Amino acid sequence: MAPKYKLTYFDVRARGEPTRLLFAAAGVEYEDVRITFDQWPAHKDSTPMGVLPILEVDGITLSQSMSIARFIARETGLDGKTRLERAQADAFVDELEELIPKMAGVVVFAKDEKDKEEKSKELDKLIAERLGKCEKLSGSDGHLVGNSLLWCDLVLFNIAHNIEEVYKAGTMQDYPKLTKVCDTVKANPRIAKWMAERPAGMFDF
Amino acid sequence: MAPKYKLTYFDVRARGEPTRLLFAAAGVEYEDVRITFDQWPAHKDSTPMGVLPILEVDGITLSQSMSIARFIARETGLDGKTRLERAQADAFVDELEELIPKMAGVVVFAKDEKDKEEKSKELDKLIAERLGKCEKLSGSDGHLVGNSLLWCDLVLFNIAHNIEEVYKAGTMQDYPKLTKVCDTVKANPRIAKWMAERPAGMFDF
Ligand SMILES: N[C@@H](CCC(=O)N[C@@H](CS)C(=O)NCC(=O)O)C(=O)O
Ligand SMILES: N[C@@H](CCC(=O)N[C@@H](CS)C(=O)NCC(=O)O)C(=O)O
Repeated sequence: MAPKYKLTYFDVRARGEPTRLLFAAAGVEYEDVRITFDQWPAHKDSTPMGVLPILEVDGITLSQSMSIARFIARETGLDGKTRLERAQADAFVDELEELIPKMAGVVVFAKDEKDKEEKSKELDKLIAERLGKCEKLSGSDGHLVGNSLLWCDLVLFNIAHNIEEVYKAGTMQDYPKLTKVCDTVKANPRIAKWMAERPAGMFDF
Repeated sequence: MAPKYKLTYFDVRARGEPTRLLFAAAGVEYEDVRITFDQWPAHKDSTPMGVLPILEVDGITLSQSMSIARFIARETGLDGKTRLERAQADAFVDELEELIPKMAGVVVFAKDEKDKEEKSKELDKLIAERLGKCEKLSGSDGHLVGNSLLWCDLVLFNIAHNIEEVYKAGTMQDYPKLTKVCDTVKANPRIAKWMAERPAGMFDF
């Protein structure tokens, strides 16, 4: 039987990876469709909001990366164990989400060295502000919220991985509780398997 | 018995009003705490993220206006009738949410006339882009999603109301489906009652 979910995104991590990590963590099959920038113009008008990612499920096409991820989190029970955990996980995601497009602005889309430098400065401030808040509010036993892996942990992990591997190695050491969350994520056998197998992508980010 | 929910925000609409509209629509009691800018410095450090709104419930303090609104939407059954409606409502909110802080940047926080003019131009583009997408995806019978009032309708209504009353009257007429959603919201007797009774606030926005 064909998988029930079809995720379409570019061949990068960025805004698509939290949902892919969720599918991996839950052990749920899906179609991981990756289109090139060359193919994109032919697809753009057929998407609901003219952007990717999209998720096709039960004849409906969903938009917005974080709404898609929250949907899959709910489908797989990774949205929170209680109503309050769900709201707390949502709030962490709200706090963190902006870092991905802002990081893309520096590592992928900077026009030249000067542009890169200016945007880096803003980004460093934003990272310090947002991770600082999350560090303060995070649980200290390797989970942002409660005592189990939730989708907000995967959103954080994707951001931290991009910061360390692509943007500025060493940043995360200032955030010991968040680092512990990322260690918990990495130690998950299904996540570890996905990390080892996942496509390299058009670029690392 | 004291109400179960305590919402604390400034004495403005902006990011707090969607949750107030939700409480009104659901007919649920809450404490509507409004603090002045003078009182704020004394409170700031006691909030989880150093910003308002916050919602206190069952001994936990929730942050992030849209996570708070989604939480109350779930508590009151205004989050969506099905799992797919919930995800679609979330996506509308993601598309719309940014308009409130951007509008505040113009109508409340512009430094001078020149700043206001420049920021207005950006805002006009953003409004056209975001409302354009929502108009395309909205249902045509007075609900963004499905056939009942959901929290995304209230988020839209709050934005449209601010656009028309405070920022640029006449804008919404370009969006007939969205206007119909706002008309449905306004016609709701509990919302109408809240609109008639709600505090004027420090300023209209
Ligand atoms: N808020 C949206 C933004 C989506 C977005 O801007 N996607 C980019 C790629 S990360 C895109 O599709 N760009 C191509 C285009 O705009 O034509 C989300 O989080 O899904
Ligand atoms: N993303 C947050 C932003 C909250 C926020 O920036 N709140 C403003 C008022 S609308 C605030 O508390 N400003 C006071 C301060 O930063 O000290 C949300 O949506 O709740």
